[in-house]
Amino acid sequence: MPPSIKGSGPFPSISSTPPSSSTQQLLSSLLLSSPSPPLVHNRYEGGAVVLRSAERTVLMQPCLKVLAVLYNGFKAAKAEPRLLGTVENELGLRSFLESRGHEYIVTSSKDGPNSDFQKHIEDADILITTPFHPGYLTRDLINKAKNLKLCVTAGVGSDHIDLNAAVDNKLQVLEVTGSNVVSVAEQVLMSMLVLVRNFVPANEMVRRGDWNVADIAQNAFDLEGKTIGTIGAGRIGQRVLARLQPFNPKELLYYDYNTLTPETEKALTARRVGDVKDLVSQCDVVTINAPLHEGTRGLINKEMLSHFKPVRLLARQHRARAICEAEDVAAAVKSGHLRGYAGDVWNVQPAPKDHPWRSMLNPLGGGNGMTPHYSGTTLDAQIRYAKGTQDILENFFDGKPQEPANVIVGVGKYESKAYGQR
Amino acid sequence: MPPSIKGSGPFPSISSTPPSSSTQQLLSSLLLSSPSPPLVHNRYEGGAVVLRSAERTVLMQPCLKVLAVLYNGFKAAKAEPRLLGTVENELGLRSFLESRGHEYIVTSSKDGPNSDFQKHIEDADILITTPFHPGYLTRDLINKAKNLKLCVTAGVGSDHIDLNAAVDNKLQVLEVTGSNVVSVAEQVLMSMLVLVRNFVPANEMVRRGDWNVADIAQNAFDLEGKTIGTIGAGRIGQRVLARLQPFNPKELLYYDYNTLTPETEKALTARRVGDVKDLVSQCDVVTINAPLHEGTRGLINKEMLSHFKPVRLLARQHRARAICEAEDVAAAVKSGHLRGYAGDVWNVQPAPKDHPWRSMLNPLGGGNGMTPHYSGTTLDAQIRYAKGTQDILENFFDGKPQEPANVIVGVGKYESKAYGQR
Repeated sequence: MPPSIKGSGPFPSISSTPPSSSTQQLLSSLLLSSPSPPLVHNRYEGGAVVLRSAERTVLMQPCLKVLAVLYNGFKAAKAEPRLLGTVENELGLRSFLESRGHEYIVTSSKDGPNSDFQKHIEDADILITTPFHPGYLTRDLINKAKNLKLCVTAGVGSDHIDLNAAVDNKLQVLEVTGSNVVSVAEQVLMSMLVLVRNFVPANEMVRRGDWNVADIAQNAFDLEGKTIGTIGAGRIGQRVLARLQPFNPKELLYYDYNTLTPETEKALTARRVGDVKDLVSQCDVVTINAPLHEGTRGLINKEMLSHFKPVRLLARQHRARAICEAEDVAAAVKSGHLRGYAGDVWNVQPAPKDHPWRSMLNPLGGGNGMTPHYSGTTLDAQIRYAKGTQDILENFFDGKPQEPANVIVGVGKYESKAYGQR
Repeated sequence: MPPSIKGSGPFPSISSTPPSSSTQQLLSSLLLSSPSPPLVHNRYEGGAVVLRSAERTVLMQPCLKVLAVLYNGFKAAKAEPRLLGTVENELGLRSFLESRGHEYIVTSSKDGPNSDFQKHIEDADILITTPFHPGYLTRDLINKAKNLKLCVTAGVGSDHIDLNAAVDNKLQVLEVTGSNVVSVAEQVLMSMLVLVRNFVPANEMVRRGDWNVADIAQNAFDLEGKTIGTIGAGRIGQRVLARLQPFNPKELLYYDYNTLTPETEKALTARRVGDVKDLVSQCDVVTINAPLHEGTRGLINKEMLSHFKPVRLLARQHRARAICEAEDVAAAVKSGHLRGYAGDVWNVQPAPKDHPWRSMLNPLGGGNGMTPHYSGTTLDAQIRYAKGTQDILENFFDGKPQEPANVIVGVGKYESKAYGQR
């Protein structure tokens, strides 16, 4: 397949001739009119090629190698084409990429030196990953990935990428920022209700054939009248607060290093607490909606858990990975100090079979609201992040500016405050 | 224990002397001043006694027999005193009732002619039941219950009482109207999220040690952008609509024979649909928040289900009992025509072990969000309905007017429109 001709794209400008729609005709004429066209193969950083004719100079973008690490959908993906984020359905990008002459490799094999991910990353130009089945891009792998220019997270949450190493290596990191904030905020509300209202043991009870209302009711509460706090009041946290308002909580609290504007605080009826310990000691329900970075790693550990209101607390978090110390949280649930924990994001994914979050239960037999990191990958969200990934690639190929909110790491510097203060 | 002296209470007035705070002194003086006080034991309908002294006539209320049918709390009730609605914790009413000289019998034995319920109802004056473990008060039992004057539902939902027979027999039926509307509205929101987001299979998957995101995501959606309708827009339905608003649904619809005021419709951004078939054919999610009465019994049957948007529908309902035909709904879930059904109220409670709602699953292995009728009996709700039951009894004993919203059947007539148009 011949390489397609593109504009200067993300590469340094080497031609005063802007990309134009006539480049295809030019290429055709060059290739067809002469058995040996005057091609000059100047390879630049970005792998661009300069193509010169008598009349003009055209920057030609060669075939790029695009590597995507997605999760297996198996039978489900064959039956449901809207499962775009699977290996089988390839984010719906194959024809788009191939029509532009790029190579597209899709795999779910991501762990260990013999995985497809670690083999193909060495000469890939673009890496697409998802938070749901993360290809962990370490500094070591970034050093090996000599052609890598762009990482796109199909979804939200790029903490599986060593962002400091990306900055050092002038590797851009983008995500589809708006694609699943709503999905995740809904999951937070669901998780709170599931834990506060003790849903899981109730559903299990009737399905196994039993009926004992008191066993369920003894650990079932209303959300109304409770003090609820979010650690992190960004795009997700604010949506959580907005959805909590009509539940008439006693108070809505938030912790964030960015103070919301007085207008936003008023609209959300939320009060800022300047310290995480202060926040958790006041709350009946805590939700964590913060990205993982140096400032949040291990934040919810045994020491912090000791500040939670005993027994009354329920925690739920997104983007939890290593924000919560797995063993400490499981121990707090098992002791009853935390009534429950519902997390969608795990510190290792897929979680090992013996992960303590799989089996933890409180002394009353409930309190486990864990799910296999799918909250941001509803069918509705998949359509949004597949489309968003294509938009990012298109901007990259065509040299158009990216949506600023999507840029986590620009060329050589952090663009987002979402991954902590740098 | 001597009978306490009360005002005319719910009984026909037989004295021109209004009840007064000096009745206790009068009784004391009568009992203490003379070895054989001039007592006249005229028993009236209500079991009242007229006590006459030289100076005045006082209506004296004798010991009434109060029968409560509650659910067993077993170990849970002993450990958690806030489980007020249990046989063990007796709605917290024993000392209140006994201090007023009444007899208080509490049982969970409710089914069949040899049950405590059916034996004690024959001479009980007041019956207290709950919707969670309903004592079914049939016309036949009402005819046998010669002393029965008042039925109090500790909670909301009195369809376990034959209301027409109550009217015919001048039996008052009251419930604690506001006590758990919030609890139930929260449960509706939780159930919608659980079904729409496919929570149950997700939680089961991680807890059994598996990890397959696609299997969950293939049937997981967002609530945002969906058309959601409620059958019934009373106290619960309106609270459901209010809590749905910040989820940004495509549209909120309602069916109710009472049209909401334009102000309420605007505040809830809800549009009335004049026909249940029209409603369900437009909705992605349907919730039923209507009482059971002649007009709603069997409403959601095979025929009505055929009008639901195929496959896209998720139903959730409170007060479902016989509004939904159990077999028809289970068949629709199993076929996938309904993606799921989450109900808290069952047509028979406790449900038999082989009830089809216990085992139904959609073709993708989810869609069962059933719970054992506990939504209105959270610990928060129990405090509210135990307090509300005491208030109703106190008003009854003291002859004070009842909170109008609590009165389902007054003496000889329906007072509430909540059980259909009569």
